[in-house]
Amino acid sequence: MFGGLIGTLRDRQPLVYSITNYVTVNDCANAILAIGGAPIMSDEISEAGEIAGNASAVVINIGTLNERTVEAMLAAGVSANKKGIPVILDPVGVGATKYRTAVTKILLDKVKFAVIRGNVSEISAIYGGKSTNKGVDAASVDIMDINDIAEMAKKLSKDTGAVIAVSGKVDVIADKDTAYAVYNGSYYMSRITGSGCMLSCVLGAFCGAVDSYLEASVCAVAAMGIAGEMAEKKMEGTGSFRMHMIDGLSNMCENVFNEGHRIEKL
Amino acid sequence: MFGGLIGTLRDRQPLVYSITNYVTVNDCANAILAIGGAPIMSDEISEAGEIAGNASAVVINIGTLNERTVEAMLAAGVSANKKGIPVILDPVGVGATKYRTAVTKILLDKVKFAVIRGNVSEISAIYGGKSTNKGVDAASVDIMDINDIAEMAKKLSKDTGAVIAVSGKVDVIADKDTAYAVYNGSYYMSRITGSGCMLSCVLGAFCGAVDSYLEASVCAVAAMGIAGEMAEKKMEGTGSFRMHMIDGLSNMCENVFNEGHRIEKL
Amino acid sequence: MFGGLIGTLRDRQPLVYSITNYVTVNDCANAILAIGGAPIMSDEISEAGEIAGNASAVVINIGTLNERTVEAMLAAGVSANKKGIPVILDPVGVGATKYRTAVTKILLDKVKFAVIRGNVSEISAIYGGKSTNKGVDAASVDIMDINDIAEMAKKLSKDTGAVIAVSGKVDVIADKDTAYAVYNGSYYMSRITGSGCMLSCVLGAFCGAVDSYLEASVCAVAAMGIAGEMAEKKMEGTGSFRMHMIDGLSNMCENVFNEGHRIEKL
Repeated sequence: MFGGLIGTLRDRQPLVYSITNYVTVNDCANAILAIGGAPIMSDEISEAGEIAGNASAVVINIGTLNERTVEAMLAAGVSANKKGIPVILDPVGVGATKYRTAVTKILLDKVKFAVIRGNVSEISAIYGGKSTNKGVDAASVDIMDINDIAEMAKKLSKDTGAVIAVSGKVDVIADKDTAYAVYNGSYYMSRITGSGCMLSCVLGAFCGAVDSYLEASVCAVAAMGIAGEMAEKKMEGTGSFRMHMIDGLSNMCENVFNEGHRIEKL
Repeated sequence: MFGGLIGTLRDRQPLVYSITNYVTVNDCANAILAIGGAPIMSDEISEAGEIAGNASAVVINIGTLNERTVEAMLAAGVSANKKGIPVILDPVGVGATKYRTAVTKILLDKVKFAVIRGNVSEISAIYGGKSTNKGVDAASVDIMDINDIAEMAKKLSKDTGAVIAVSGKVDVIADKDTAYAVYNGSYYMSRITGSGCMLSCVLGAFCGAVDSYLEASVCAVAAMGIAGEMAEKKMEGTGSFRMHMIDGLSNMCENVFNEGHRIEKL
Repeated sequence: MFGGLIGTLRDRQPLVYSITNYVTVNDCANAILAIGGAPIMSDEISEAGEIAGNASAVVINIGTLNERTVEAMLAAGVSANKKGIPVILDPVGVGATKYRTAVTKILLDKVKFAVIRGNVSEISAIYGGKSTNKGVDAASVDIMDINDIAEMAKKLSKDTGAVIAVSGKVDVIADKDTAYAVYNGSYYMSRITGSGCMLSCVLGAFCGAVDSYLEASVCAVAAMGIAGEMAEKKMEGTGSFRMHMIDGLSNMCENVFNEGHRIEKL
């Protein structure tokens, strides 16, 4: 099922508009290209709404947010929502600073997201910030197992209407009814910057090409993990790991995916 | 003729000041160093004029423009013009948003450019925006052949006084009288981000070291294309293609250039 | 002595907060991860003080400073000073523009730095700007030998209270009493962008894990130089040199360090 989505993406070449951080933006653009999409980056309010309205998907990443770019994020999100274009949120560091937490709350209030992707801490911070939930304290985050995470993701999906993709040793992707675990990936993805950011952009590319955001997200997470596994076999250090992971994305195809993925429906 | 310019550049080590986008800025700096120049980047109005006045060439790339950086672009361009320092324009995405089109018009009004480099769509958008021309519609762009592009480039050169470098499957470089086609390059240059941005910066390095901007531009386009061909032979994916292309630039020399270039005077 | 600090860093995984330029920020984050630290980047005043207060070390790099980010640098520096968290200054291009010189003066007035790292020109510009010194003119910089540099560094350390790390063909690191020379490194570190920026960040990681900032700085400089030497052996051009240097950092360990370092107490 999932493997066929690679070909769909490559055929449709979705235009992915990312308002993202300046740390990993180059890797993000190259990851979008490698998987078969077309990237465009801009954080200027004067054109954010216009670009978003012409894109196949919009990715909002708050990794190096500032007051100017937050305005562009809101304009892009609202514009995409009006046209039914999927918007992906990568809430980098939400919970770590008051400003990021406040901005994330505003984004969630004003923009309807197709997918929210983050690590367990970030997703827990959002989950805890929703008034309908009790919240997750930091100590609990460390001992959550896959089923705990899947429960949290389903509830957060019900609250937000977004597919929730939780990155970790095992990745969990869920909508309000259904959760998947993805066992692909490499330890070294956590030893470079940008693995999460690139995943959010690749996820945006799949959402821009595929109707089901849940399936798009599962496929993106597994494809990224497989690329990481391919890179781990070739690496001589973390610098070459990063390069080989982008090589892996560019070499991804239905066969490679079907032989490599370890997706489980929970 | 052109091959000798590599040595001239490496001897003179031109200081290339780039106001460029944050997506590909690192590749741009490394490309300038690889071909033998010295890069400096800044987009702060408080120092843009001063840096430009001390540079060998200035490259203005609007890839992630914003209101603050556009002011710096104008200050740098005007400062360089006063001292006769060549200014290169890379009008990324002009025609794609109203803001980029408007900013490009202002830049063309206030700054005299030595070279304008873009893809066929971007150059057509500028050509169409000049009141003396009828414009090129999007549908026509796709069916333009080399001679059509050369005609457009010559006319735009006459209008602007700039050498026009048009990137595409075949690259066309022209001033008002003379046009060259360059057949070097690799498909994979379009599968990574930054090939065009890097070319504009390498072109800036040649213009900062060589008197004829037409010859400098032809040489830069061919050198970049040869580096792309070298990279295509070594790549294992698009991540390694990018690395090998910068390796290729750093290994460029008169012999490699003379054996590899496919330049034709039209 | 120094080799053991690698293990200390890897055990403690210091959180290094960098306010740095957008040219080399990705390499900086990857270098911090490669040596064993955890990077966080932000230049937003609304969160700079909060992040700095929770970090193990703060690195301020003025490579692409602007009015907005300078405010964040000051807030971060002051916040870190209050908690005794080490702050490293990389005064990129100080002396090259009036604005950079003025900003550096303000930073030195308002923030107490643990380490100042720059090339000979940059350190000389700061030294010359201190009223207690006569200054170093540009011509003199080129003919300074190691002992001249060590004298300057010791005096500047006495004036500022910071360890001074001077990068060059031979690196010199000094506090007011003691100076070291480090003979490691590769010519190709000057043929890519970011060697200095990465060093400042790696230095921040060591300062965030080790009590003696002098020893931390010497170790960082030597580790970076050894990584450069490892990369020179594997490179096929400057693009692959850069990748192999990050590989080298990620493969750094006490044995590699002890066999490779060429540190001399002056």
